[in-house]
Amino acid sequence: MPRSTIVHETPFRVRYAETDAMGVAHHSAYVPWLEMGRVEWLRAAGLAYRDLETEGYDLPVVELRVRYVAPARFDDALVVRAALEDMRSRSVRFVYEIVTAEPRPRQLANAMTRHLCIRNGAVSRIPEVLRAIVERSA
Amino acid sequence: MPRSTIVHETPFRVRYAETDAMGVAHHSAYVPWLEMGRVEWLRAAGLAYRDLETEGYDLPVVELRVRYVAPARFDDALVVRAALEDMRSRSVRFVYEIVTAEPRPRQLANAMTRHLCIRNGAVSRIPEVLRAIVERSA
Amino acid sequence: MPRSTIVHETPFRVRYAETDAMGVAHHSAYVPWLEMGRVEWLRAAGLAYRDLETEGYDLPVVELRVRYVAPARFDDALVVRAALEDMRSRSVRFVYEIVTAEPRPRQLANAMTRHLCIRNGAVSRIPEVLRAIVERSA
Amino acid sequence: MPRSTIVHETPFRVRYAETDAMGVAHHSAYVPWLEMGRVEWLRAAGLAYRDLETEGYDLPVVELRVRYVAPARFDDALVVRAALEDMRSRSVRFVYEIVTAEPRPRQLANAMTRHLCIRNGAVSRIPEVLRAIVERSA
Repeated sequence: MPRSTIVHETPFRVRYAETDAMGVAHHSAYVPWLEMGRVEWLRAAGLAYRDLETEGYDLPVVELRVRYVAPARFDDALVVRAALEDMRSRSVRFVYEIVTAEPRPRQLANAMTRHLCIRNGAVSRIPEVLRAIVERSA
Repeated sequence: MPRSTIVHETPFRVRYAETDAMGVAHHSAYVPWLEMGRVEWLRAAGLAYRDLETEGYDLPVVELRVRYVAPARFDDALVVRAALEDMRSRSVRFVYEIVTAEPRPRQLANAMTRHLCIRNGAVSRIPEVLRAIVERSA
Repeated sequence: MPRSTIVHETPFRVRYAETDAMGVAHHSAYVPWLEMGRVEWLRAAGLAYRDLETEGYDLPVVELRVRYVAPARFDDALVVRAALEDMRSRSVRFVYEIVTAEPRPRQLANAMTRHLCIRNGAVSRIPEVLRAIVERSA
Repeated sequence: MPRSTIVHETPFRVRYAETDAMGVAHHSAYVPWLEMGRVEWLRAAGLAYRDLETEGYDLPVVELRVRYVAPARFDDALVVRAALEDMRSRSVRFVYEIVTAEPRPRQLANAMTRHLCIRNGAVSRIPEVLRAIVERSA
């Protein structure tokens, strides 16, 4: 059960379009934030998700869990912390925290996504390049 | 652990704006579908969510789980099936299925959301009107 | 300047996810509503947008204008009225109104989108099937 | 017709959730990008939009125009350039360009939004603090 020790932090601000009539960020808005954190984790690890796609790979989300701990509001400066927690032969799991940027990080949400590895439409082994990154940083 | 036997079905179509570059509905698009199913479940049970809000209540999502079983595509005619599965004194849990509309429903996703009951900013007991609905249909 | 006389009305409700911290539907939410109206206009005219895509066609939006007249709120029952206003050899223009459903329609927004016709990546003539629909209903 | 000479540039990346089945950023995704550019313009000029809200002001969009010149794709590094082009007594107009970040900016879209000034629900004069910013930088 390889597990990378890389934790990547991506800062962002809550957009007005992401708020709802309760005056807080809508719970669906967190899902693209997780995705952004995952994409930036891969980039920090040396891998552009776009390059995986060019080689025919996709990592569709097959499971999503989010726990909402405290609300986020418009213009809040937040950070998504992402880590690859578990890599199997054909799937991978990322875990996340959404925290406030300043001054002491406070957790607003934590989450998990599980991804199946697909290549040209069929379930496939995790690409070697990603496997190598995880093993190097385990 | 009261549990309503009402299962409400809300038909809808996948919007183009909800698709992504994989050619399927993006996984974040399902979250508003669940919400739509929940709002329509409440309406079918005789309760407009808007009326709860007018009385100072909110039911923010504190936990979300989605399992993605098969992809949905642009213009697919789908149905969200929603049910209230568990009601505690201050929280409530809905379960969902996203299925194809025709000809034989095929499950594309299943999900769960847990909600805390908030009134005027503080954790509160589930409103009596919702409690009565669940007890009548248990 | 062929112009179809078909006006198609698509009913829908404002989703909670589409609201913002001002307590009204966010102005970006209207853009997928217009798209929904356009797709349903085509379907009512006998043409599934999905079938156009299968034949290699796309109608990307090259211009968008929206005038917001009055706010829409969560759960409002609205209607998008769509009409094809102008068809050129390689482009087409739709006009829209967002109105309240009941009891007397009140306009909340009006809009226009202009689309270029693309086939397999290159600018193309409007497909014959769409041209025929517009000419029949002119 | 005061017009500020401040042009503020906000860098961002296209999110996967913002793409559509054509493989490009969906045209509705640009609208929150414009909003982000506008909010950052205000911040650069010394004014947090959130502070305007605290004082009871809102600047709802009453008109939106976007011209889409070339497609944006997932993970593209883009910049939104925003400028306040026209300030009337009770309304304000922003203009925008969406350009590629590197190496030579190429325009992907240009846009305009017009905003009415609302205070505590009624049309109001533009707040003095914003008026002063525009006049200082005219």
